Amino acid sequence: MKGNTVMSSYVGPAVDAILAEAISNTIRFLSADGVQKAGSGHPGMPMGCADIATVLMTRILRIDPKDTKWFNRDRFVLSAGHGSMLLYSMLHLWGILPMEELKQFRQWGSRTPGHPEATEVPGCEATSGPLAAGFATSVGMALAERMLAERYNRPGDEVIDHFTYVIMGDGCNMEGLSQEAASLAGHLKLSKLIAIYDDNEISIEGSTDLAFTENVNARYEALNWAVQDIDGHNRDAVTDAILTAQNQTDRPSLIVAHTTIAKGAPTKAGTAASHGEPLGEEELLAAKQGLDWPSEDFYVPAEVYEYFEQRKGELIGLRKKWNSSLAALAKTDAEAAGQIKRLAARKLPDGWEDAMPTFEPDEKGLATRASGGKVMNAFGEVIDELVGGSADLAPSTKTEIKSGKWANFVAPGSYAGRNIHFGVREHAMGNIVNGLALHGLVPFGATFMVFHDYMRPAVRLAALQRCRSIFIYTHDSFYVGEDGPTHQPVEHFAALRAIPRLHLVRPCDANEVAQAWRYAIGRNNAPTALALTRQNLPTLDREKYASAEGLFKGGYILSDEPGAEILLIATGSEVHLALEVAVKLRDGGRKVRVVSMPCLELFGEQTIKYRKAVLPPSLTKRVVIEAGIRLGWGDILGRKGIFVGRDDFGNSAPQKVLVKHYGFTAEAVMEKIAKAKF
Amino acid sequence: MKGNTVMSSYVGPAVDAILAEAISNTIRFLSADGVQKAGSGHPGMPMGCADIATVLMTRILRIDPKDTKWFNRDRFVLSAGHGSMLLYSMLHLWGILPMEELKQFRQWGSRTPGHPEATEVPGCEATSGPLAAGFATSVGMALAERMLAERYNRPGDEVIDHFTYVIMGDGCNMEGLSQEAASLAGHLKLSKLIAIYDDNEISIEGSTDLAFTENVNARYEALNWAVQDIDGHNRDAVTDAILTAQNQTDRPSLIVAHTTIAKGAPTKAGTAASHGEPLGEEELLAAKQGLDWPSEDFYVPAEVYEYFEQRKGELIGLRKKWNSSLAALAKTDAEAAGQIKRLAARKLPDGWEDAMPTFEPDEKGLATRASGGKVMNAFGEVIDELVGGSADLAPSTKTEIKSGKWANFVAPGSYAGRNIHFGVREHAMGNIVNGLALHGLVPFGATFMVFHDYMRPAVRLAALQRCRSIFIYTHDSFYVGEDGPTHQPVEHFAALRAIPRLHLVRPCDANEVAQAWRYAIGRNNAPTALALTRQNLPTLDREKYASAEGLFKGGYILSDEPGAEILLIATGSEVHLALEVAVKLRDGGRKVRVVSMPCLELFGEQTIKYRKAVLPPSLTKRVVIEAGIRLGWGDILGRKGIFVGRDDFGNSAPQKVLVKHYGFTAEAVMEKIAKAKF
Repeated sequence: MKGNTVMSSYVGPAVDAILAEAISNTIRFLSADGVQKAGSGHPGMPMGCADIATVLMTRILRIDPKDTKWFNRDRFVLSAGHGSMLLYSMLHLWGILPMEELKQFRQWGSRTPGHPEATEVPGCEATSGPLAAGFATSVGMALAERMLAERYNRPGDEVIDHFTYVIMGDGCNMEGLSQEAASLAGHLKLSKLIAIYDDNEISIEGSTDLAFTENVNARYEALNWAVQDIDGHNRDAVTDAILTAQNQTDRPSLIVAHTTIAKGAPTKAGTAASHGEPLGEEELLAAKQGLDWPSEDFYVPAEVYEYFEQRKGELIGLRKKWNSSLAALAKTDAEAAGQIKRLAARKLPDGWEDAMPTFEPDEKGLATRASGGKVMNAFGEVIDELVGGSADLAPSTKTEIKSGKWANFVAPGSYAGRNIHFGVREHAMGNIVNGLALHGLVPFGATFMVFHDYMRPAVRLAALQRCRSIFIYTHDSFYVGEDGPTHQPVEHFAALRAIPRLHLVRPCDANEVAQAWRYAIGRNNAPTALALTRQNLPTLDREKYASAEGLFKGGYILSDEPGAEILLIATGSEVHLALEVAVKLRDGGRKVRVVSMPCLELFGEQTIKYRKAVLPPSLTKRVVIEAGIRLGWGDILGRKGIFVGRDDFGNSAPQKVLVKHYGFTAEAVMEKIAKAKF
Repeated sequence: MKGNTVMSSYVGPAVDAILAEAISNTIRFLSADGVQKAGSGHPGMPMGCADIATVLMTRILRIDPKDTKWFNRDRFVLSAGHGSMLLYSMLHLWGILPMEELKQFRQWGSRTPGHPEATEVPGCEATSGPLAAGFATSVGMALAERMLAERYNRPGDEVIDHFTYVIMGDGCNMEGLSQEAASLAGHLKLSKLIAIYDDNEISIEGSTDLAFTENVNARYEALNWAVQDIDGHNRDAVTDAILTAQNQTDRPSLIVAHTTIAKGAPTKAGTAASHGEPLGEEELLAAKQGLDWPSEDFYVPAEVYEYFEQRKGELIGLRKKWNSSLAALAKTDAEAAGQIKRLAARKLPDGWEDAMPTFEPDEKGLATRASGGKVMNAFGEVIDELVGGSADLAPSTKTEIKSGKWANFVAPGSYAGRNIHFGVREHAMGNIVNGLALHGLVPFGATFMVFHDYMRPAVRLAALQRCRSIFIYTHDSFYVGEDGPTHQPVEHFAALRAIPRLHLVRPCDANEVAQAWRYAIGRNNAPTALALTRQNLPTLDREKYASAEGLFKGGYILSDEPGAEILLIATGSEVHLALEVAVKLRDGGRKVRVVSMPCLELFGEQTIKYRKAVLPPSLTKRVVIEAGIRLGWGDILGRKGIFVGRDDFGNSAPQKVLVKHYGFTAEAVMEKIAKAKF
């Protein structure tokens, strides 16, 4: 059967020009009024993009206003997030946001924050504002669409078949992030990605000519994008350009829409003065008069509301047709249909946790990056939606899924794989991972821990918008050795712990790695970062030591004895050093407790009772060992505790040499303890 | 007089082809031997670039091997820093690094770390390794050259007149950072910047075709670069291309040098296997045999050493000629010549600190971003080398120097200004600022604090290579208000404090701002970040409170009374809240000390005696108030302290509303204190 071929290349019925103009002005002035009432915000962008938004709403976007999470909806991302009132005006006309919310723009508790927040605003696909982030996230969404389409579509029954639209501004195009994302999208031939560039030639310091004179069109052409130039206020031109873009088969599209910022404002249109502050009552009134618009605040003509009532009917019809397609697929391929429903519900496959491998005790052991690869592969066997890749470091990060379904690399025009070559593009990788997560996949992105810095804004956005993004950071300390301080993280544990909602997990052996992956996959409302070693670590004998499942408490007692008077606390590779020290202390007749603390943040979320049981306040002789800076350990160390760490950048030398110089030997720690004023 | 016009467009005498080949092979095998001996490293890049390096050494680069800091030397940056042995081999042939250092590649204490480190390696211009960072830094150097040239050159006496050369790899070109930097360099028409792109089509995961199929040449052309394509193993072609590039007058140059990675290695040349590990004894030996090279390790033919002895003579001759030019300038323009000498010596003008303004007490006060602008302008009047700009936020960050010399904006082809429009390119800005600092200027770069994340790798590199870079971060907390959590830093104080050597200074009023700027400018061996507010803050009456000079201790007692039993510690805007709370506590008969702690790291560097005097261990009733996360305050809080902060992302709402919800009012803090189990 021909299921829903309607979804490829879609332009809805034409709208009467006078009505279309009314819709544009409605969006224009709802936006300007919202900013004016709030007393702050960005009127210029939405006024300049109102005509584009009108085309998107009336003829292009296929969403279901009654179910903003419909799995096969077109995605629309406002990368120029400061123009948030454009999105909120659209969401109001679709009946998703009530008028009262527009009037509460930028106020406490509203659904209309200063920049779009996916967690707060129904119908908002991605949190945006940090420039180019929305664009890069949309690349992830467009990639997810192709990956899922190749998995689940059957000839004539394309249940995964939507476009991803994104509006970006000059600022987005200046950020290197957009270059990374565009280069990868062009490489991968993501032809269902359509970016509309609001080219208004104004940024905050003035004309973009002050700093930005590159030929953006030619650049995107060099990146294998199809580029069109149009008048962004000519709705027919916008429609035609989008239709042309929809029909591209091997290139994403950039539609360079030449617009006038704050179009309609008599004195501020085309100037930086309209970018980031209210027009002012007088200018706003004059703008309304100039466009024959009633002066009434938040005015929506009755015929505009009427039109969208009818339009919603059309859209819901498209949605119902898709429901039938899915029902048809369920008959021919119940597994595929079931998976789609499962992904839409953000549910993992039943029993997925049973796939977790366990590792036998092994003195020689293996690097946690290596056990990480094994664990990831084991989970990958049962979780088809576990997908991802590395920023050109897969052989080092060990993050290729080599067995199970779809165990290939995604390639240009061929998306049935689950491994992605991100290239040396950490920042885009981070946002693309977020986009994959927002589309329902369980994605990971890997690089060396020190290069977290390159992608930090994306990790923050993962946390802010509560994506189940898994960030894998290998080579997690000075144990990197010879590559030297440019490649040795020291401040990164602290920096990662600082990001709210993100959990940094630094497992100490293969079995903690298994639990760490289990934890990260199961954590469906926030991102997790895994810190993994380059160097080999023993696999602990869990008959002798506590179960690695203790990781789910963030920290747990690994080794103990009655009347313990010294408390050793360590993470990751340093847990083994702590155990070595414990042996020596015990040999000397001291009683010792060793705590493995793979996730400080998670430990902090446990009950006071549990935390006190693990770290009794009376036990003040504390030694924390971690191959990084002290920052963040103060609470646990107290006034008397000893910190064994590294507070300056590292050096280039073999790890065995560094270990001695930095005092990461049992002997050196023993000496520190001996000198301690406990 | 015609001083040193030799410096524009320079190609040295031709070298006999057989000798040139010997030099290439010397570099090739010194590099491969170094990696082999170290047991780790990257042989492929230096072997592939040995022919290019030969041309640079024999005919292009004008440096003084006896004085690697000669102010007018050509700058050469190895952006593909993993190829460090290329640089070290060159430095050896110039007589800058002894052979023993090459044999100690990647060992403790050597001058030959795994990646080039400007602080460790004589003759190394910039710390590189994190991809594209060297390239972006070189843009800063090329810009510095033009800025200084327009200031100090006189017709016929161009004392500032050098080229900046940079070798970049595929990875550099994949990073968005290089796009930002290239876009700005093209915009500014930095025609004396010559980038050689080692296009070997191999990255770690394999062929660059896996992820990188964009048309790099066309992209750079779109960025206003002059692009040439050459065979990177044809030394004549390399020479000709560089000469052509030198003669560009309005565009930087990209020379796309097609090379074979590990050229000469019989089985590994052209493969990813040669990228990041030693060739292996067998392969290395076969490579030497294939090129008729002695098998001896670290072999340098006598004629190669002889050639460089003679070449050094030529180079020193060039240097002497420049000395004469400078002497001539000193006669016609003593001030210009004096400034050049001063900059070369990294000395600030005498008495510069006297320019520090002071501010009268003022209840209404002003935002610290605003006082920051005033202070910066005051210092700018006496420190000509204070230059910088913002990532398209100058009207908000208040970072334009509006008076004094050179108070214009740098523009394409016109560099006499001191203000720079960086565009929305935070990451490039950071590295360009570092490049300006490495060239002897005192540069600043400004953006909103939350966007520090976009430039974090550059800040790390500033710290690692000890640049006097000043990073100005305004809008430093949730007090940003309506823009919401995408624009409100909460974790950034902690994240900035985490970077070793960087000092984060968060002044509480205009007079602390003045001291903060004085501190940052005077700190010549590390970068400083200033955290400044969007909102107004009172200017404290320093007759009533302690002098703002206390900032130089990191933290100081602002207000005290004998027998103080409660210790309030705050930074920045929260100092005023602490003072308000102190009044209420004192009204209630409590005795209170208030400490202003603008720089925790600097405070940590004070003597124990001083620290104990400010924060007596016995004074355990402590309240820390800071509009950010708790991380990093544990040491000061101790077990009983109260932290008033914000541990989750913020919300979009007016700051007055947020203040109430987050408990940043005197009433809320009083309530917390009342409930405290001190």
